[in-house]
Amino acid sequence: MRAAQEKGADALLVTHAPDVRYLSGFTGSSGALALTVGNPVSAALFTDGRYTTQAKTEAAGLRVAVGKGAPGGLAAAWLASRGSKKCAFDAVTTTVAELDGMRKAVPGSVRRSFLVASRGLVARLRERKDAEEIALVRRAANLGCRLFEHVLEKIVPGSTETDIALAMEFEARRAGAEAMSFETIVASGTRSALPHGRASAAKLLRRGFVTLDFGVLLEGYCSDMTRTVHLGRPTEQEWDVYHSVLEAQEAGVAAVAPGVRCGDVDEAARSVLRKAGLEKWFTHSTGHGVGLEIHEGPRLAAKQEQVLEQGMVVTIEPGVYLPGEFGVRIEDMVLVTEMGGEVLTAASPTAWMEL
Amino acid sequence: MRAAQEKGADALLVTHAPDVRYLSGFTGSSGALALTVGNPVSAALFTDGRYTTQAKTEAAGLRVAVGKGAPGGLAAAWLASRGSKKCAFDAVTTTVAELDGMRKAVPGSVRRSFLVASRGLVARLRERKDAEEIALVRRAANLGCRLFEHVLEKIVPGSTETDIALAMEFEARRAGAEAMSFETIVASGTRSALPHGRASAAKLLRRGFVTLDFGVLLEGYCSDMTRTVHLGRPTEQEWDVYHSVLEAQEAGVAAVAPGVRCGDVDEAARSVLRKAGLEKWFTHSTGHGVGLEIHEGPRLAAKQEQVLEQGMVVTIEPGVYLPGEFGVRIEDMVLVTEMGGEVLTAASPTAWMEL
Repeated sequence: MRAAQEKGADALLVTHAPDVRYLSGFTGSSGALALTVGNPVSAALFTDGRYTTQAKTEAAGLRVAVGKGAPGGLAAAWLASRGSKKCAFDAVTTTVAELDGMRKAVPGSVRRSFLVASRGLVARLRERKDAEEIALVRRAANLGCRLFEHVLEKIVPGSTETDIALAMEFEARRAGAEAMSFETIVASGTRSALPHGRASAAKLLRRGFVTLDFGVLLEGYCSDMTRTVHLGRPTEQEWDVYHSVLEAQEAGVAAVAPGVRCGDVDEAARSVLRKAGLEKWFTHSTGHGVGLEIHEGPRLAAKQEQVLEQGMVVTIEPGVYLPGEFGVRIEDMVLVTEMGGEVLTAASPTAWMEL
Repeated sequence: MRAAQEKGADALLVTHAPDVRYLSGFTGSSGALALTVGNPVSAALFTDGRYTTQAKTEAAGLRVAVGKGAPGGLAAAWLASRGSKKCAFDAVTTTVAELDGMRKAVPGSVRRSFLVASRGLVARLRERKDAEEIALVRRAANLGCRLFEHVLEKIVPGSTETDIALAMEFEARRAGAEAMSFETIVASGTRSALPHGRASAAKLLRRGFVTLDFGVLLEGYCSDMTRTVHLGRPTEQEWDVYHSVLEAQEAGVAAVAPGVRCGDVDEAARSVLRKAGLEKWFTHSTGHGVGLEIHEGPRLAAKQEQVLEQGMVVTIEPGVYLPGEFGVRIEDMVLVTEMGGEVLTAASPTAWMEL
């Protein structure tokens, strides 16, 4: 609420589902949380008729209100009716049309000045995980690791990419995951040069790389990891590129510590690939936060000034993609601890599968 | 483009992934399509470095540009550089922060007036499916039906809701679905009174309702259907509520035809429940469009003036939810044809499972 007050706001309106969940416990897809600044804070959760019972159970202790129309508008009207003059909303997750609806829900007399844009107020709170959240992230990461070990025997010539993805997904669901945290990537052969090559019907060949990028959603928290495996005897170039990416990834992990700028972590990984003459083919940023959402803050990208803090969980995932040839990406989830970065996804680093 | 011109715009900027896919074929998660009005239309697809190869393959024939920064900003800058004066964007799918970024990407001289809000220009085009799309929707709907038949044997006392959801999800993926089109709902016993009761560890009891609401994503298109099954001998109330919902659902389906107002379809279903004294417990709208997204236009809700058109695909899904007791929902996908509504999800209407 302090952050909202800095905007001159006396209230906060939260509509992004993961933010609502974080603050209230409510897991439905349609909800708005209204909070007034002050002591005591007064708060109410607005949802629609489909979620009445669920909201009352999950957001126990909170006032739950159900109404017709968008929850954001109901929440804005409620805040205005309680005398709020300036309410912060999140510009990053609110659409132009939703903002328009929230504006129209408040009386004309305050409409013009009522809603003030903020950026990721709750998202920033969510970047630092507390002990309970870290325990959940660990469980998700551990399950992710087990999936990779589970599927290794299927990484053989003749398997389709989809076979491999399904084997991981079935195991994830059997082990209690709600879902995968994103569409599973299994990219073999020249498809490994696609950073986002969703599993296809392509069959694994007797030689070449296979990139697996996958994660689970377990009790609301995401895991995210990438392994690249090589079948058959690698060429010298394949060997060199793989080891450059591995070195870059390890340099990125080693750079993680509280107080370090995110841009410097990116640079630690990127500079390894630069020295190897491969920087041109590292076409994305080094990593991102993970938690209730698969992509959260902080961003580990070039020149990012944000500083890592204890309790953040980030990915370190450099990659090199040679279009039409092959690609390699290696990704771990790393917890920022007092002592530095702790790798949460320490699956066996099997990379070379001689046939 | 005619719709954009009505806004006084000479260009259209499309950033919502399903809209980009619909117009260009590109299936990546990060893309912006810029189109200028005029003859010939000039168009370009902007994405980021992860998707270069994929975009060139999928959006064959389109100019593909990769740059640093948000694709929406790149597209806006490109349009401005080509002399566009007024560009329509979609207020429904563009966040306040994205709009801000697009504004900042164009020269100061045109910034103020350059971007004009429109609502669902492409979404409206997508409501009417062409023959190719209808074939894909049929395939998705057929697979959905097969899942229900596949899982019937698991709907027995002692199965957990999750067992049932997993069995459907495994079969869906085995049959070629990319994913489920939304989180599978399996809600048994008193949980059936939750309109959105995600599958839990709860075991099916010897008596009571189980609601299954599920769909697949197959070649980009969604299916969506709900069946409510009763185990054991029903009470008179259960029997009556079920048949009222079924009658309401059939009345909704029967009302579907080109030229009919969406509000009238809603009313056709709702009035049946009103006469049965159950309207109070029908807490959501009657249906929605389905296609590349699980929830699209048109909305079949009270007082909606929009008129059904040939080629639209909508759900008809009335439900009655008695909190703490039980709930019933029945849902089909219906194609609007010249002849009226064609049910696409005609799975066996098994409802009563005497044990």
